[in-house]
Amino acid sequence: MTDAAWIAVDWGTSNLRVWALDAGGQAFAAHESDQGMGVLDRDGFEAALLTLIAPYLTTDRTLPVLCCGMVGSRQGWAEAAYLTTPCAPPDGQAATRVPAKDPRISVLILPGIKQISPPDVMRGEETQIAGYLATNPDFDGVLCLPGTHTKWVHISLGEIISFQTFMTGEMFALLSKQSVLRHGISDGEFDQSRFDEGISDALARPQSIAAQLFGVRAGALVADLQPSEARARLSGLLIGAELSGARPYWLGQNVAIIGDGGLSKLYRTALAAQGVDATAVNVTDTTLRGLTAAYESLKEKV
Amino acid sequence: MTDAAWIAVDWGTSNLRVWALDAGGQAFAAHESDQGMGVLDRDGFEAALLTLIAPYLTTDRTLPVLCCGMVGSRQGWAEAAYLTTPCAPPDGQAATRVPAKDPRISVLILPGIKQISPPDVMRGEETQIAGYLATNPDFDGVLCLPGTHTKWVHISLGEIISFQTFMTGEMFALLSKQSVLRHGISDGEFDQSRFDEGISDALARPQSIAAQLFGVRAGALVADLQPSEARARLSGLLIGAELSGARPYWLGQNVAIIGDGGLSKLYRTALAAQGVDATAVNVTDTTLRGLTAAYESLKEKV
Repeated sequence: MTDAAWIAVDWGTSNLRVWALDAGGQAFAAHESDQGMGVLDRDGFEAALLTLIAPYLTTDRTLPVLCCGMVGSRQGWAEAAYLTTPCAPPDGQAATRVPAKDPRISVLILPGIKQISPPDVMRGEETQIAGYLATNPDFDGVLCLPGTHTKWVHISLGEIISFQTFMTGEMFALLSKQSVLRHGISDGEFDQSRFDEGISDALARPQSIAAQLFGVRAGALVADLQPSEARARLSGLLIGAELSGARPYWLGQNVAIIGDGGLSKLYRTALAAQGVDATAVNVTDTTLRGLTAAYESLKEKV
Repeated sequence: MTDAAWIAVDWGTSNLRVWALDAGGQAFAAHESDQGMGVLDRDGFEAALLTLIAPYLTTDRTLPVLCCGMVGSRQGWAEAAYLTTPCAPPDGQAATRVPAKDPRISVLILPGIKQISPPDVMRGEETQIAGYLATNPDFDGVLCLPGTHTKWVHISLGEIISFQTFMTGEMFALLSKQSVLRHGISDGEFDQSRFDEGISDALARPQSIAAQLFGVRAGALVADLQPSEARARLSGLLIGAELSGARPYWLGQNVAIIGDGGLSKLYRTALAAQGVDATAVNVTDTTLRGLTAAYESLKEKV
């Protein structure tokens, strides 16, 4: 078996993902678990990590482990203090050392980034941004990182100038699974035309979003809106309202989307209807690239 | 003990409230439980009702029971088909008979009201509206019924002309208790100035509501926003966004609010800042008045 030179870790609220990389910088294995920050108390992080990386541990040397994400939050393994905008994404020198008990690992966590006014924060996305900039060093424009808390980020000269977070993904999850809307919503084939209508209706009247949302329920009750149509309409309404609020970020801008395939496609489609031709890159690859870039810059510190 | 001439029932998603009324139409007792529609299956409704009204049951006569609310929905005890706008609030003649098993009760459920375009529905509020119109028969203007699903209702010549529902209350509950915002929110003294700021910020940029909501979390992390301030700001943002969407309902209109004291006061304050001097009436009294008006009109049917 290949020896791991170091371990890259993307540790979010819901998931833990690790890669084992060889001395040449190639990831030769990846593992995942549901041991996200949200389900762990402070003492649980080390065990959750060791479970996934056990095959790569040896007693004759210390294995460097570099993490990004919510693992560095106040509720995480150890708090990694934020950098402040405007700033370049953090390199490895800015990482915080975690006092791991197991001598076979040496753990560092990359900081997140905060913005003072208006107040905003990111943890994990800064590493995705670093990964994007590693292969697009001259990028000038806007990055959209869709997810639970979608980020719109203005990049210029390699720095994060400003950003804005929308709770779109979390609202979709809460509304589709825990609100009154859940009675009329189900998975099933995605209805693109209902999604498009939702985008268009929300862009036309974003101030009425709370009424348009109830209309998804009412549509099921009095207008025969089908459960899979309702799901697509809900998604369209929420993303449409976000696009309305984020207009200063994308209007007339060079936009790239860093996300998973399905969600990126929804954003690309919606932006295309507004005349914006966004490119899209895979978020997992980009995260690993960002962790790799940070690792290259801290080799001497580990 | 006074004999009950009939029982009035307000049966919503979360609560069941009954009043016992004497032959003169006076309520002489009231009881409540948490056996709302949401926790009952179809067979559970009769037992939940009998538990509360046991003291008033006799074997020598059948006790009329008149209900309004979600008990008449498809997931309720029996479906009471909607009336359609424009229409007057339903009187007792429009009620649906429920096949109760216990011969000591005769149960009727008042219908809700639907609007075809844009799709919307109400169940329970139509009876509050009937109660309001019973004492204000010449009212012409807009009723605001704040709650889990706040309704704005245009009334003219005794009819419900149109209405619009906002999910504001349910979104507040989900966001404050189940979203990432819960980490920075607590009860405590209500911070009026943070509420006012939230109203004002949402009215200024309603399209950015999903970003302003995340800002409540970010404000706690980077700008020292305190948990009780955060709660007031969240409330202000959501009500402010609603007021923005509902502007066609209240701008330059004669507005009355039917709600509980605390929530009505928030809406009155927010509307006053927009130059609208709304009156407010107690929702519980108004509901009972509406059930009484409907009962008077159906005495011959029971």
